[in-house]
Amino acid sequence: MPVGNVELVKLNPVKGIKIGITEAHVRYAGRKDLTVFDIIAGANTAVVTTQNQFCAAPVQLLREFIAKDSPRYLIVNTGNANAATGEDGKQRAKTTCVALAEKTAVAAEQVLPYSTGVIGETLPADKIIAGLDSALANLTEDNWLGAAHSIMTTDTTPKGHSEIVEIDGTTYTVTGISKGAGMIRPNMATMLGFVATDANIEKSLLQNILTDTVNQSFNRITVDGDTSTNDCCTLIATGQASDTVIDSDQHPHYQAIYDAIKSVMLKIAQLIVRDGEGATKFITVKVSGGKTSEDCAKIAYAVAHSPLVKTAFFASDPNWGRILAAVGYAGVDLDQSQVNVSLDDVRICERGGLASDYTEEKGAEVMKRPEITISIELGQGDATDTVYTCDLSYEYVKINADYRS
Amino acid sequence: MPVGNVELVKLNPVKGIKIGITEAHVRYAGRKDLTVFDIIAGANTAVVTTQNQFCAAPVQLLREFIAKDSPRYLIVNTGNANAATGEDGKQRAKTTCVALAEKTAVAAEQVLPYSTGVIGETLPADKIIAGLDSALANLTEDNWLGAAHSIMTTDTTPKGHSEIVEIDGTTYTVTGISKGAGMIRPNMATMLGFVATDANIEKSLLQNILTDTVNQSFNRITVDGDTSTNDCCTLIATGQASDTVIDSDQHPHYQAIYDAIKSVMLKIAQLIVRDGEGATKFITVKVSGGKTSEDCAKIAYAVAHSPLVKTAFFASDPNWGRILAAVGYAGVDLDQSQVNVSLDDVRICERGGLASDYTEEKGAEVMKRPEITISIELGQGDATDTVYTCDLSYEYVKINADYRS
Repeated sequence: MPVGNVELVKLNPVKGIKIGITEAHVRYAGRKDLTVFDIIAGANTAVVTTQNQFCAAPVQLLREFIAKDSPRYLIVNTGNANAATGEDGKQRAKTTCVALAEKTAVAAEQVLPYSTGVIGETLPADKIIAGLDSALANLTEDNWLGAAHSIMTTDTTPKGHSEIVEIDGTTYTVTGISKGAGMIRPNMATMLGFVATDANIEKSLLQNILTDTVNQSFNRITVDGDTSTNDCCTLIATGQASDTVIDSDQHPHYQAIYDAIKSVMLKIAQLIVRDGEGATKFITVKVSGGKTSEDCAKIAYAVAHSPLVKTAFFASDPNWGRILAAVGYAGVDLDQSQVNVSLDDVRICERGGLASDYTEEKGAEVMKRPEITISIELGQGDATDTVYTCDLSYEYVKINADYRS
Repeated sequence: MPVGNVELVKLNPVKGIKIGITEAHVRYAGRKDLTVFDIIAGANTAVVTTQNQFCAAPVQLLREFIAKDSPRYLIVNTGNANAATGEDGKQRAKTTCVALAEKTAVAAEQVLPYSTGVIGETLPADKIIAGLDSALANLTEDNWLGAAHSIMTTDTTPKGHSEIVEIDGTTYTVTGISKGAGMIRPNMATMLGFVATDANIEKSLLQNILTDTVNQSFNRITVDGDTSTNDCCTLIATGQASDTVIDSDQHPHYQAIYDAIKSVMLKIAQLIVRDGEGATKFITVKVSGGKTSEDCAKIAYAVAHSPLVKTAFFASDPNWGRILAAVGYAGVDLDQSQVNVSLDDVRICERGGLASDYTEEKGAEVMKRPEITISIELGQGDATDTVYTCDLSYEYVKINADYRS
């Protein structure tokens, strides 16, 4: 069960993007597992990919392809990550791109492959290729929700968000979907995120926007600290809303579009944490007063990754000593007598010791909440950073001990 | 239940060390929780302490004291870590040292304090002081096993080891004990380790031996990646076995003593992993073929800390893709086509892909073993490193969700 309200808003179609989904039986029968995005000619596309050295075969191919040409199709399968599959895996991914390119009369390099699922198993490329006709047959603009479902693996809920902004009489749409619940500590992007807008955004600016908003969203979530081999986040600007080309961050339309994209990114990134494997609590770790934002991020991640902190939150136990211990081993020089820690509005630690007005009752009350912000003030400077995570429950162990079996 | 054979050898007395234990009711009634070590005058003592910035009050005090004088007593309580307790905590630790110093006619700085237990609660110094007479009354050389019991917290089994070496007609004894089961990623030493020998080792050399052997033992184990606030490892050389002063690593007695100390350190460090909270498997992560041993350690720790790897081992699932993913995100530049991975004698990954002769049956067979070595060859150079860890089970979550409650 995901944490908090995860009901999706209507995922508005983005003019210039059509989506087809089908059952290709990649791993399981009876579920949609193949998704094809059709991108209108002339759109710009930006991608960020995992920093995992064992990046999957489709990620390797995708990097080569997008450097050569402008994508016209995305082909996404679940059930098999096609990771740690060597040269054979790359060839198999390529055959699916070639097959789709032939059916749609585009270059093979204009088809980007994405895979998610179990690592280390051979991709059943033939099944994917066999499913392409069916996916192409139901291409439609209003299929984002269907796609959010069909890219799921251990996710218990589809993830998406959509915003509409009006600027100077032009209506822009930004819609995005994501997937992921475990092996989540994106180090570029989540397992899979697809965001599109009908704004006309110049290509290099689009890449900057993607990198920047991913850093504030997908790169600030963690479930278990495991950076996936298949992380990819894709941002498409179809340019169908208007002829106005947004070509710099000084453009009058820039800020509103940027904010809408960031909002969609953050929402679909946070939905991954809310659906984190076994999660019962959504935890925001906010570190302020640091010398640098890197210091703040180090501390926020140390707290967010600590199994002891995570199990204490699962147990609703205000065991704040574990938070301090994690702050202390994050690798940042600290004066512990300057450190304050609060859980929501309850100050638990003051100047490195127990807060004078703290009571176990107050701590117990705040720990019962399903969404909690841990605020850590370092008293060293003005830098801040924020990371989103969840607790560690029996269910996490169960899911990951059972998965694959 | 600890993993493997954790039955202790006889913990031989070390001439010059007497140990007294008692019930001081620090946290619980009906269990020994206060331990006093009496060190003969003229002994040399070396200490390494946690690198956690939130180091506990007794650790702060201990660092000050050992810089000033040669220790004659160690005073160790369980049930309360006296960490994140500010200046008050330090004063409370000091009162226990002063009380023991008065009773034994030594300087307060000659008494080193050690605490382990819950973080952030006020140390009941009065209870500890009240227990001192009883502890002093039963000081005896043959009390190492009793001390191994009385320093336990969530440990399910006492931890100790002992070796006797004969060199040129001199018999040397090395005996050590440790405690710890959770919040284990020592970054200097484990929660608590006490090792003594009757060899006569020059003080600065003793410190070098301690630092070096800790780096190969306590600093190479991890249960949950959480570096404690209270880690301390202490090595005492009483000099009672012989008048021969071992004053350099060229001394004829040096190597045998060094080896015995290292062996005791490694054994009592590994016992912590075998008794890791909820552990069902003892896992050795051996990385070879790296450019530097730091690279190898980074990769070994990434694998050892991955919740996905740890849950797969709990489930006896040869999900080797998770191992590769962890290798890939360790932050080391790799050519994945050069990487091989084995579980014991079963090669699972060859040149970054599935090994040609690997079968799921072979993988399933090896994963059933209670002790498994993951060997990772990077194919980049000659450096190696090894880390010891355990799996992640329901029981880990249960213990840490229940502890304190």
